Amino acid sequence: MYKFCIITVGPLKEQYHRDICAEYAKRLAAYCRLERREIQARRLPDSPSRAEINAALDAEGVDIMRAVPRGAYLIALCVEGRRFTSESFAVALRAAADSHPAVAFVIGSSYGLSENVKKSADLCLSVSDMTFPHGMMQPILYEIIYRSCSIISGGKYHK
Amino acid sequence: MYKFCIITVGPLKEQYHRDICAEYAKRLAAYCRLERREIQARRLPDSPSRAEINAALDAEGVDIMRAVPRGAYLIALCVEGRRFTSESFAVALRAAADSHPAVAFVIGSSYGLSENVKKSADLCLSVSDMTFPHGMMQPILYEIIYRSCSIISGGKYHK
Repeated sequence: MYKFCIITVGPLKEQYHRDICAEYAKRLAAYCRLERREIQARRLPDSPSRAEINAALDAEGVDIMRAVPRGAYLIALCVEGRRFTSESFAVALRAAADSHPAVAFVIGSSYGLSENVKKSADLCLSVSDMTFPHGMMQPILYEIIYRSCSIISGGKYHK
Repeated sequence: MYKFCIITVGPLKEQYHRDICAEYAKRLAAYCRLERREIQARRLPDSPSRAEINAALDAEGVDIMRAVPRGAYLIALCVEGRRFTSESFAVALRAAADSHPAVAFVIGSSYGLSENVKKSADLCLSVSDMTFPHGMMQPILYEIIYRSCSIISGGKYHK
């Protein structure tokens, strides 16, 4: 069974986002072992400078890289990454999962991810050219993983 | 105040999706008058033929076009549409809202939209190359509208 790990920065604040993730986690249990690792978000002042943001991203980036399971294929979500259709992403995910002990997905804070995490990632995935709130990206990622698993297993979910 | 109308096919089944939309509707009240029109989804057998799907889409399409407010600028969400960044979409939405009595957004059923609706739309908007469930597209659309309104009004939401 594939092993997937979702790494996020800071807690998911809204109950409705937690509810969606819980529902997908339940459904995904049929397809994979899914683990969630949450690293601490660094505190920033109300109107942080670019330097303060970068320092926070760098510190979070160190924790993120520590949270990646050993030997895992790392997928970082970022707006400037590569775009996929659902079908082509399922193919890429299957290839990564077949050849690695785990696949880790990372979603940054509301300020994004450090350059170091993006450079270290095996794949930067862009879901959309539009920006979405950090909290909404988690349900979106669960849905992407679930749809991929369904496509890989030949299920009916993706028509 | 801008007038926006969201047209959808069939009810939003999941409570968590309804909760997100309700939260955004509350926040959007500061920026616009937002109306939601739901047209009836046509029933289809478990494994419908292409002809059955097209007949359902055509029938839903007639209802959708009837639900569009008079003179409205029509934006249809479909995967093969045009992509925007959050900033460029805000510019396009502002231009449309400034020159029309209303802007209508339409999200199709899980089988999508009829060709006629797509052809009638002033703009086909592609949020992602990936497919998302029909129910999840509504919270995503509310978020896009909210972020656009915040950008247009110079708010801090989009950093």
